[in-house]
Amino acid sequence: MFKIEAVKFKDDKIILIDQTKLPLKEEYIVTDDYERIAIAIERLEVRGAPAIGVTAAYALALSVKNKNENVEEEFLKAYNRLKSTRPTAVNLFFGLDSIKEEFEKYKNDPRVYLKLIEAAKRLHEDDIEMCEKIALNGLSVFDRKMRVLTHCNTGALATGGSGTALNVIRRAYFNGFVECVHVDETRPLLQGSRLTAWELDKLGIPFSINTDSTAAVLMKEKKVDLIITGADRIAVNGDTANKIGTYNLAVLARHHNIPFYIAAPTSTIDRHCPSGKEIKIELRGKEELVKIGDCRFTSDAYDAYCPAFDVTPAELITGIITEKGVFGNPYRLENV
Amino acid sequence: MFKIEAVKFKDDKIILIDQTKLPLKEEYIVTDDYERIAIAIERLEVRGAPAIGVTAAYALALSVKNKNENVEEEFLKAYNRLKSTRPTAVNLFFGLDSIKEEFEKYKNDPRVYLKLIEAAKRLHEDDIEMCEKIALNGLSVFDRKMRVLTHCNTGALATGGSGTALNVIRRAYFNGFVECVHVDETRPLLQGSRLTAWELDKLGIPFSINTDSTAAVLMKEKKVDLIITGADRIAVNGDTANKIGTYNLAVLARHHNIPFYIAAPTSTIDRHCPSGKEIKIELRGKEELVKIGDCRFTSDAYDAYCPAFDVTPAELITGIITEKGVFGNPYRLENV
Repeated sequence: MFKIEAVKFKDDKIILIDQTKLPLKEEYIVTDDYERIAIAIERLEVRGAPAIGVTAAYALALSVKNKNENVEEEFLKAYNRLKSTRPTAVNLFFGLDSIKEEFEKYKNDPRVYLKLIEAAKRLHEDDIEMCEKIALNGLSVFDRKMRVLTHCNTGALATGGSGTALNVIRRAYFNGFVECVHVDETRPLLQGSRLTAWELDKLGIPFSINTDSTAAVLMKEKKVDLIITGADRIAVNGDTANKIGTYNLAVLARHHNIPFYIAAPTSTIDRHCPSGKEIKIELRGKEELVKIGDCRFTSDAYDAYCPAFDVTPAELITGIITEKGVFGNPYRLENV
Repeated sequence: MFKIEAVKFKDDKIILIDQTKLPLKEEYIVTDDYERIAIAIERLEVRGAPAIGVTAAYALALSVKNKNENVEEEFLKAYNRLKSTRPTAVNLFFGLDSIKEEFEKYKNDPRVYLKLIEAAKRLHEDDIEMCEKIALNGLSVFDRKMRVLTHCNTGALATGGSGTALNVIRRAYFNGFVECVHVDETRPLLQGSRLTAWELDKLGIPFSINTDSTAAVLMKEKKVDLIITGADRIAVNGDTANKIGTYNLAVLARHHNIPFYIAAPTSTIDRHCPSGKEIKIELRGKEELVKIGDCRFTSDAYDAYCPAFDVTPAELITGIITEKGVFGNPYRLENV
């Protein structure tokens, strides 16, 4: 079976599948130049917080490859460059700082490059393991062969491993618990109809794409038994920020009495965030609403409201699937 | 103030604004050739059931312009050609049949062309009057300055007059009852961000566009006081078929306790249709989900579920605004 890897390290080079070209073209970026990797993160050629974290870690390690002089200077230059690519991605900073710690230990050691690559590989392996545990724990929410709806992309393309919410669906499918998957196209950036559809097609899992507002009709027609999405940030009371459209699904799920689950690593839980009220939502530019790719279809002179995420209140979330288990409402996530 | 007219008849020619090019280009189709008008209806250069009905009536009348021989043959050819353009639009058949009746009366009269044009103009005037009455009746649902959300395009571009749901909003705005309008972009064909936005901009009414799933966030943030959409078909019990996404809005409105109204002419009520269960929903091709204009962004090999309309149950509809008054639940529309 085709193995989907957003990030791969081979022969001292990093290999990224260019996600801006999927699904129409499968092109790879193969480089050992951290600057090229920084640009790939900025262009969203690689996206998804965990995938970015792993990619940045390899990139920073590569910055000292074949360096004999000014190693520390070069390293710090790379560290700051990579740190500036996506100001909000927690995993990015975590990945870079882990490599920096390792660098402090070995910076005067001739094996420093090898040590940093080893550290990056450990991060990568941890991510793979986290994805597998989430998928395994997610099996418990299936009690029969179900038709599942998901939103955005939370698969292998978004992580160093096999994904979060979409990995739960994948694992459940190969265990005989999934009949088909309904995929929200996920406006404005269409990660659903572009990336999730591409992954499910590669995996041979039956699926169908729909506009986001069609999800309501699918539920009304009793074609959805279960909804699972990912999370960008989870407050300790269970309120969850995720891709715009998630809250809409949660309200529809409640109206149609359909279980609604979140699947995410515990690293997504913000222990300094008591509730959703404290989660600041990033507002995007209107460009995403007036064009797709280079195709403009309406005027950018019009006002637009374009939040990147929304917050789903805990009481609408049936459960949160993590690598440490499945948690239910009322959520007490401070010590998870 | 700029007067928006989807359909205009001047100097024995029909003038259509090309709605496929809006809002980026304002181009007009000026012709007295019924075949060109048939193509315009097929290409959606003119769309919206009432606008199509009026346009087809003028087109059929024009088919006998300057004809001295084989007039009946020419007329019937035009009648059948125009009838074949949009198989489901009720107003199309109504418009064509009204002109046909007139033709039967005057086919041997040298003034037949003038008689048919007069009949088409009467249809056009009736449509204008219907729009005005709906707008006037709609004022009663505003009790203060409100922030209104709407879906798709139900304005002047969709009718021979000033529109249905959007005309209610326009009238209310100029009476001081509308603070701003939130416009669903309305996937898949984006009539909201392209056509409704263009109309509101021309009218100088403050508005903002949003992706369809962002409507939920607007309601959660208490930025929506009232929702008004149009209707494609209304069953006698009040169940209403309208553009895909309408049912989603109705569920969100109920969850957030926001009034949800439909505005449509009584000609939209199907007296042979007891309830929504009897309304057959047209399924569109997946093309609309995988490309915008000539811009393909995902694979057309993927399965897609693409209903053109959805059905909102009467119990989720606060009221139905028509030219004959505003009706409430329980709906008894058989004799309206």
